[in-house]
Amino acid sequence: MVLAVFWLIPAAGVLALLTAFILFIQMKRKDPGNERMQKIAGLVQQGAMAYLRQQYKVVAIVFIIVSVFFAVAAYGFNLMSRYTPFAFLTGGIFSLLCGFIGMVAATHAASRVTRAVQDSLNAGLQIALRSGAILSFSVVGFALVDISTWFYILNYFFKGAPEAKMITITTIILTFGMGASLQALFARVGGGIFTKAADMGADLVGKNEFNLAEDDHRNPAAIADNVGDNVGDVAGMGADLYESYAGAILASAALMASASHGLSMAIQMKYVLLPMIIGALGVIFSIVALFIVKAKNSFGMKELVGSINKGIWLSSVLIAVATFIVTAQLGLQNWLGLSLAVSGGLLVGVVIGFWINYQTSQGYKPTQRVAESTQTSPATVITSGLELGMKSTWVPVVAVCLGMAGAFYCASGFNLSNISLGLAGISLAAVGMLANLGFVLATDAFGAIADNAGGNAEMAKLPHSVRQRTDMLDAVGNTTAATGKGFAIGSAALTAMALLASYIEEIKLALVRAGNTSLQNIPINKASIIDLVNYYQINIMNPKFIIGAFIGAMLVLVFIGLTIGAVDKVARKMVAEVRRQFSNSKILDGLEEPDYQRCIRISTKGAQKAMFAPALLAIVAPVIIGILLGVAGVMGLLLSAMTTGFGMAIFLANAGGAWDNAKKYVEEGNFGGKGSQAHKAAVIGDMVGDPCKDTSGPALNILIKLMSMVAIVTAGITIAF
Amino acid sequence: MVLAVFWLIPAAGVLALLTAFILFIQMKRKDPGNERMQKIAGLVQQGAMAYLRQQYKVVAIVFIIVSVFFAVAAYGFNLMSRYTPFAFLTGGIFSLLCGFIGMVAATHAASRVTRAVQDSLNAGLQIALRSGAILSFSVVGFALVDISTWFYILNYFFKGAPEAKMITITTIILTFGMGASLQALFARVGGGIFTKAADMGADLVGKNEFNLAEDDHRNPAAIADNVGDNVGDVAGMGADLYESYAGAILASAALMASASHGLSMAIQMKYVLLPMIIGALGVIFSIVALFIVKAKNSFGMKELVGSINKGIWLSSVLIAVATFIVTAQLGLQNWLGLSLAVSGGLLVGVVIGFWINYQTSQGYKPTQRVAESTQTSPATVITSGLELGMKSTWVPVVAVCLGMAGAFYCASGFNLSNISLGLAGISLAAVGMLANLGFVLATDAFGAIADNAGGNAEMAKLPHSVRQRTDMLDAVGNTTAATGKGFAIGSAALTAMALLASYIEEIKLALVRAGNTSLQNIPINKASIIDLVNYYQINIMNPKFIIGAFIGAMLVLVFIGLTIGAVDKVARKMVAEVRRQFSNSKILDGLEEPDYQRCIRISTKGAQKAMFAPALLAIVAPVIIGILLGVAGVMGLLLSAMTTGFGMAIFLANAGGAWDNAKKYVEEGNFGGKGSQAHKAAVIGDMVGDPCKDTSGPALNILIKLMSMVAIVTAGITIAF
Repeated sequence: MVLAVFWLIPAAGVLALLTAFILFIQMKRKDPGNERMQKIAGLVQQGAMAYLRQQYKVVAIVFIIVSVFFAVAAYGFNLMSRYTPFAFLTGGIFSLLCGFIGMVAATHAASRVTRAVQDSLNAGLQIALRSGAILSFSVVGFALVDISTWFYILNYFFKGAPEAKMITITTIILTFGMGASLQALFARVGGGIFTKAADMGADLVGKNEFNLAEDDHRNPAAIADNVGDNVGDVAGMGADLYESYAGAILASAALMASASHGLSMAIQMKYVLLPMIIGALGVIFSIVALFIVKAKNSFGMKELVGSINKGIWLSSVLIAVATFIVTAQLGLQNWLGLSLAVSGGLLVGVVIGFWINYQTSQGYKPTQRVAESTQTSPATVITSGLELGMKSTWVPVVAVCLGMAGAFYCASGFNLSNISLGLAGISLAAVGMLANLGFVLATDAFGAIADNAGGNAEMAKLPHSVRQRTDMLDAVGNTTAATGKGFAIGSAALTAMALLASYIEEIKLALVRAGNTSLQNIPINKASIIDLVNYYQINIMNPKFIIGAFIGAMLVLVFIGLTIGAVDKVARKMVAEVRRQFSNSKILDGLEEPDYQRCIRISTKGAQKAMFAPALLAIVAPVIIGILLGVAGVMGLLLSAMTTGFGMAIFLANAGGAWDNAKKYVEEGNFGGKGSQAHKAAVIGDMVGDPCKDTSGPALNILIKLMSMVAIVTAGITIAF
Repeated sequence: MVLAVFWLIPAAGVLALLTAFILFIQMKRKDPGNERMQKIAGLVQQGAMAYLRQQYKVVAIVFIIVSVFFAVAAYGFNLMSRYTPFAFLTGGIFSLLCGFIGMVAATHAASRVTRAVQDSLNAGLQIALRSGAILSFSVVGFALVDISTWFYILNYFFKGAPEAKMITITTIILTFGMGASLQALFARVGGGIFTKAADMGADLVGKNEFNLAEDDHRNPAAIADNVGDNVGDVAGMGADLYESYAGAILASAALMASASHGLSMAIQMKYVLLPMIIGALGVIFSIVALFIVKAKNSFGMKELVGSINKGIWLSSVLIAVATFIVTAQLGLQNWLGLSLAVSGGLLVGVVIGFWINYQTSQGYKPTQRVAESTQTSPATVITSGLELGMKSTWVPVVAVCLGMAGAFYCASGFNLSNISLGLAGISLAAVGMLANLGFVLATDAFGAIADNAGGNAEMAKLPHSVRQRTDMLDAVGNTTAATGKGFAIGSAALTAMALLASYIEEIKLALVRAGNTSLQNIPINKASIIDLVNYYQINIMNPKFIIGAFIGAMLVLVFIGLTIGAVDKVARKMVAEVRRQFSNSKILDGLEEPDYQRCIRISTKGAQKAMFAPALLAIVAPVIIGILLGVAGVMGLLLSAMTTGFGMAIFLANAGGAWDNAKKYVEEGNFGGKGSQAHKAAVIGDMVGDPCKDTSGPALNILIKLMSMVAIVTAGITIAF
């Protein structure tokens, strides 16, 4: 039996999916523009589909292999729960579905946005934002439906000691997070390689060597570049945030179960359901926020950003207030502390978002200083960007630390021996940070759609004024994307922290499954987190822990190296192909259409091959370290991957963002403007930043969680050795 | 009373100093070349002196302030030992002296090498190598004299419980390491900023804009560039390795004391003296190695490198063998395990050195691939260098982990409960790695001297054949420097690990000093490392520990950002000044001498100002984290700074080295050679790599140890809060 309040969760999930569906119908009814616009949109759609088809084939094979491996471990050797192979699969499938739906919506929306801005800026904004919301509401909808369905099923079929019921159920559902994470890593890395290789290829030859404009229809890589925006920034981001959102809720549910262990079943269930309920509240207030955002034709950049920010603030405040009311109504002990943790999470997300925007927007000093360095040499552009990126890590890290400490102390009621509740508080902060994802992600996807609308306008040779309006929407998208990034990065750190604790819980369950009844002198079901920590000597003086930590930091760097290298490799092939096509002068003169498909195929094939090694690293490392160094080694690995990965993710995002916008600052006419030496230097910075900010950086957020998820799922294997 | 074997240590120290002195006299007797050569050498000497004078003024002020602070803490509040302020000062003074002597030797040697290669390659090699040895033997000599003097004094004056004698003495001497580390950080960061700003300034304007050759006498920054090689690569490196060498021995002595706690006093002293004795053995075999290196005029690169490598191998093997004999003779329990740890350390150093050479030499694929990317764009040069640097971290990390595990298990006799002896084994591996520093550092400093000799030849307008010979020596120096780097980086990780353990020991002493008699139920003098770890909950589930870990990784990134930024800032000023001077066409036509002094002053002033913030970070962070988050927070900080810092140091060193040599590969005539587009792209890569490999990277090795040292010295303050 489940509590009545449970039904709020699937209901909110269905509501979100319904909203996404209605938004899709509405969008499809809009005018898709003239024939040429539709043709270009069609090419982009085909390319994106071709890519996704290829990508999903590879992913399917990997998922089947991993599932079989899990099935053998579960049914053959009793090393994991028998639900795990299935939960793992559903996580992957839903993640994939989110990316797919988002991409279909985005590719259909682009030409319609282009058409709409010809009438009014607001019309364009509405289509772009609401099409972004198709992705965002699919993400939250599928997550809530999937989580609640699994919860209901497991709750219904559970057979075993009732006192372990909630812990067991939540830890099994957590493995569905691994499926989501693994699919997300493929989507982010594959999509990221595709899009940046196409982008660099188009820019290096088209822009630099032949002085073509961005999105010039004669550039053979132009369509591939636009396809890339969809598969990287839309499908990749959708899968990424599905993983973040589901992961945060699942980790939190697992920690709430262990924090409420020993209380009555009804109370335990309330604790476990709380993170899901916060997600459900978030759906409702995200819908509210979506419908209050309006733009007038007279709006400039500032007003547009302001109107979107209003939506973010409003939904944040409403969620925070509702959380206080709901937790009090549920009658949870320490409801105040738990609600404060949620609010703290929201606040940390907002702070990081503002900081990213301050550091990477050309409206502020930091990025302007990078732009200044374009006057000296490309070398100083790179060094000043590295400087900005590295120095800028301090605010997000301090914010997350404060949020973590605040959540821990508030949730534990300032009682330090209450570690379980404190850790659950940290996970609730992550849930809070992502609660209004339905709205925040829409504002993020919005930018990619506006970007594509601009590409459509350029390739369809529409008047310059159209491109100006889509550029404005694009610029707005870049600013609001900073906020989205803040939430994604911040929540990754908090969720990873929560997963560390879940790992210990899973080790305990694995010990039980393996037939252990006690831990030295402590009966296993009475063993606390600290007892396990002591038993496995997960402390600073254990060389296994230290070695794990060294390996963790190293893996993060190797992962970045592999992904940057992959972009580099595919980009070089793209450059060769574009140069080859331009050797036919008819293409350059516009008399013959370039072979767009070849470029798309190069990116597709290159991305598929190159995404393999980094993904393998994430899956294999925790298993091998677990076998060689045991629980303490895995813990060192996860800790260090988390701290190094978090810092490097911010560094890469901010350095890349600053290089990108420093180039825009020069293009706005500063330091000689377009075509000057300074501009050339700025373009080099932008190209270096591309794989940093759009491939390696965002993938790191997934990596650190995926490694934890893998460790959790394979805990049984670790303790068997 | 000390054991008779003790006297071997000061004797070896004096022998090393005597060797350095004789080498200096011999070098001074050589022909310093013609008038113009002497004049240029004089300018470089003056510039270097002017810089060091300024630098030492700043360092003196900082040291006085810190010493006064320590004196107040020690005498006013009993928060540290009363010897600490003095030990701290001597560490700084000796470190400073090493840098100074090395620099005097190097600046005097340069023109003599230039003169000597006119006669024969071997003559030049001998002067350069033996002048480098003046630095290296000063380093090991002063370290052994200082350490043994302090040991003798403290042993003589010690009053207190005899069972705590060795632990107390070694922990007090350890604070002398903090003085050495702090001075080294100033020397590395200040020198690194000076040299790279001058280098970038000279290259950006002279080479790129006016197509002058390297070291053209008309370039106003040419002398500053040569001064930079001396203050950065010689004085900075000398201070750096003095810190590494002394730090490794001191940390090891402290851990040996705690590992032998409870045994008889004579045995305890044998344990404590062992790392120093290994250092003494190293002196003897380094002298042997120095005198067997010979070159013939017919030698090419390969033979030259081979003859130097023979010296490294020979000294390594001799030290390893001697260690087995000495430990057996001393009658130490588990002498075999301890000796194996030492040999393991030597092996790890050699492996890392080979790997660095493989990754960064233009003779091998990895750097050639970076060179290939110069054909595409400067952007791909940067991304492929980033890729190489990040991916290349894996071998050094795995080697250090294996070395660490091997040392731990061998030394502890495969008895895992014997943690103290295992940790001491790790520290012995670090000592082993640095034992032949007397020779290895000479081969490292040799490169800087050869580089300067080349500059001297160019500016003195000597025939091209002279420059070719010095270039050959320089190239040899670059290869052997890779080995030197391997030892420096590897030992940093192992020493940092040892310092973590020493920190715990110091916490115990601080508790005793503060009047505590027991730790919960355990009498404090019986409390083991693990008891302290449990008491302070230095484990993965303590949020203070986790927050400390997040901050540690972040500080490493901020430190890199600050140091790269400093080079960037000073380089821009240098560029402006060089451009200003070249606006006077007489300078460019060679009719008027440029104002070298202004460029030297810009680098000097800029470096002084800019080295402050990063140094402050290292000193203040452990104290503040200690006050806010206690022992667990500090431990998290140190662990994470160590793992992230180690990875980043390798990344920066290898990326920078590869960019440097990719440029050389192009200059050797590949992909169009000098003056081609590819060459221009390669130069940009080289300039980005400059601050990475010569400023931030090497400073990181010091940073991670300095933070540990600060934590150790201020442990009393941490537990008072």
